[in-house]
Amino acid sequence: MRAVDLIIAKRNGAAHSRADLSALIGGMLDGSVPDYQIAAWLMAVCWRGMTPAETADLTAVMVESGRRLDLRAAAPFVVDKHSTGGVGDKTTLVVAPLVAAAGVPVGKMSGRGLGFSGGTIDKLESIPGFRVTLSDAEFLAGVREVGLVVAAQTADLAPADGRLYSLRDVTGTVESLPLIAASIMSKKLAAGANAIVLDVKVGQGAFMKTEAAARELAQAMVAIGAAAGLGVRAVLSSMDQPLGYAIGNALEVREAIQTLRGAGPADLRDLAFALGTPLLLMAGKATDAAAAQAQLQAALDSGAALAKLRAFVAYQGGDPTYIDQPEQFPSAPVVVPLPASGAGYVATIDAEALGYAAVTLGAGRAVKSDAIDPAVGFVLRRKIGDAVQAGAPLLDIHARNAEQAAAVADRLTAAFTLSADPVTPPPLVLGRY
Amino acid sequence: MRAVDLIIAKRNGAAHSRADLSALIGGMLDGSVPDYQIAAWLMAVCWRGMTPAETADLTAVMVESGRRLDLRAAAPFVVDKHSTGGVGDKTTLVVAPLVAAAGVPVGKMSGRGLGFSGGTIDKLESIPGFRVTLSDAEFLAGVREVGLVVAAQTADLAPADGRLYSLRDVTGTVESLPLIAASIMSKKLAAGANAIVLDVKVGQGAFMKTEAAARELAQAMVAIGAAAGLGVRAVLSSMDQPLGYAIGNALEVREAIQTLRGAGPADLRDLAFALGTPLLLMAGKATDAAAAQAQLQAALDSGAALAKLRAFVAYQGGDPTYIDQPEQFPSAPVVVPLPASGAGYVATIDAEALGYAAVTLGAGRAVKSDAIDPAVGFVLRRKIGDAVQAGAPLLDIHARNAEQAAAVADRLTAAFTLSADPVTPPPLVLGRY
Repeated sequence: MRAVDLIIAKRNGAAHSRADLSALIGGMLDGSVPDYQIAAWLMAVCWRGMTPAETADLTAVMVESGRRLDLRAAAPFVVDKHSTGGVGDKTTLVVAPLVAAAGVPVGKMSGRGLGFSGGTIDKLESIPGFRVTLSDAEFLAGVREVGLVVAAQTADLAPADGRLYSLRDVTGTVESLPLIAASIMSKKLAAGANAIVLDVKVGQGAFMKTEAAARELAQAMVAIGAAAGLGVRAVLSSMDQPLGYAIGNALEVREAIQTLRGAGPADLRDLAFALGTPLLLMAGKATDAAAAQAQLQAALDSGAALAKLRAFVAYQGGDPTYIDQPEQFPSAPVVVPLPASGAGYVATIDAEALGYAAVTLGAGRAVKSDAIDPAVGFVLRRKIGDAVQAGAPLLDIHARNAEQAAAVADRLTAAFTLSADPVTPPPLVLGRY
Repeated sequence: MRAVDLIIAKRNGAAHSRADLSALIGGMLDGSVPDYQIAAWLMAVCWRGMTPAETADLTAVMVESGRRLDLRAAAPFVVDKHSTGGVGDKTTLVVAPLVAAAGVPVGKMSGRGLGFSGGTIDKLESIPGFRVTLSDAEFLAGVREVGLVVAAQTADLAPADGRLYSLRDVTGTVESLPLIAASIMSKKLAAGANAIVLDVKVGQGAFMKTEAAARELAQAMVAIGAAAGLGVRAVLSSMDQPLGYAIGNALEVREAIQTLRGAGPADLRDLAFALGTPLLLMAGKATDAAAAQAQLQAALDSGAALAKLRAFVAYQGGDPTYIDQPEQFPSAPVVVPLPASGAGYVATIDAEALGYAAVTLGAGRAVKSDAIDPAVGFVLRRKIGDAVQAGAPLLDIHARNAEQAAAVADRLTAAFTLSADPVTPPPLVLGRY
């Protein structure tokens, strides 16, 4: 079948067979199907969507486009975790040590910040010496010896995804649920874990702005996992405000450490438990959620999870003394409070606006070649439902200098709305799939 | 605005401004907007459509991409005619001499066959010596001196259309009404006529298969004409069976000559009148349809239209003796009747199937580089509503040899359905816009 016939079939709403998808993606990779045909096809997919079977087939074809890590040499059952991206989302740094400390090895590929959303790899690089690029042998040894590895995504896993993503980025075809699901899952499946938990973020500070879209994405990814014969569970979690209090790379690592010491924000701990529970269940470490949660709590209370974080940082070349003396982390020269414009209860916080403002300060990249400033960002002083007096601080701006702090202040003020009446904080976990 | 933002705007259903379209099409032509972005945008246009204002703006931008013929030096008011393409459609060869003989100069760019549909340029080339490529000076002089010129479309009129069309052809984005309308009208507007009549074909032997789609296309093109300040009228005509009896290049020219002698098929003459009438009205040669039709009838009856055809052929280098002795046209070595499989009334004729079968015989091109055989094709012996006895001929196959005739026979038989009950022939003209 010619590529144009496949494009027309999708334009007319037909479903592709696995052979069709293999021909199209294979043609893209070997250059026989030009980018303009793939681009038209991607837009037709945005228009017509894909069936669950098609999405699973596309994912499988993308996985087959490269090599797949074989983790059996490292451990009989390895788990992975993925977040669709949010603001202040340092959850990996909490849940991975918890799960690993509970005896379930975690081998994870992670990404960098994208747009308003931070990335675990950028956060880990704020620890001096930490190496995010590992050889396969180092990755496997880390899973085997430490039980916890987090490395940067490599281009040879699901290379079709990289090619497709760069085309989607410039052709207005990023926002298609089946394409997003296949993109995420192809990288996850290629990374070789036996079970995966997905943190699907929903809200203003997430890529999925509505619960319906997030639910659809979660279900699509769980279905892809099932089709691949893998354990995949998804948790829908709210991004209607930043997670925890810290936004910015070193600030977030410090907050994760604080949480593993038992003194972090409740929402971050709760979400880590919600994500860790299905991992322990899928790994057969517990037979029900209550038992799993008790094991995670024990790993937290005993300090085992913090110790696991320390060992993991040391294994990947990072300075483990930072875990015990986090005050060593680079700090911003200027810390400026942002005063509330009036009195009331915090009603909404535009997490996306905070994410973009953090990028402006240097916590993320406006263009790919930008360097990250690990020290800058924000620490919230109020979250939704908290009362505030006029002039009292809503957050602290951690900036390189006073000018940069002043430059984002108006945007930050506009990101908060206050209510005269008390406000109930929104629920954190919105669904489990 | 970046190209990707324009793609996203269209994907989300927004309408573009003229400046947006100018940036996009200009970027395509100067290479700053790559083909993959245009391809994604084209699919988004298929999906979301375009408003009448947008379609008119796109057409204007496409016209501005090249030069525009200035016919004022040739005559104060020049008319043009366009068909969306059908099977057996030799109407230009009848209506253009009629209108020119009635005193309204016709200056027309025409195309070659496409798929199952024939093209006037291919038909004219069956006259020995006929030159379809004219210089501007020759074109203008023909309009001035003869009052009738038909030349092959040149690439420098609306070059954006050529670029867009080749991309549409390979990206499954041909079938979009606004894109079709803008493509046709950009070439027509660039060709410089003051008034245009459009023959919008509808039915199995046309590109528009449904009356609703054909009506929408007709209205879109009339609206583009109005936005450009031009007189544009459209006639919706049935392509539920071939027009006239002849299909194939020389066969069709002979049928057109026969019609201008007053002895051709009624449907061909009626359609020529239906298309010539609005041209005479727009040119101010008549004040109502009855008067216009009387002038066309007079041009036919007096032999003036036939004389105009002769003069036109001679002006463009063709041998005018072919008009008076059409038996000189090359004829096929083999003429084989196709017998009816049973008795009854002809109920339907699949004109598209006949068009493709004619291509198989050599009357059209399977690939662009194929040579045309002017002699081959079909002459219908029965049309819809006609009675036929079992074994009596439905049509004659004019072929290069008996094998080629035999090779298409089954397909031709399948293209006819017979009814035991009498059948009323379908109406020819379905609407006027």
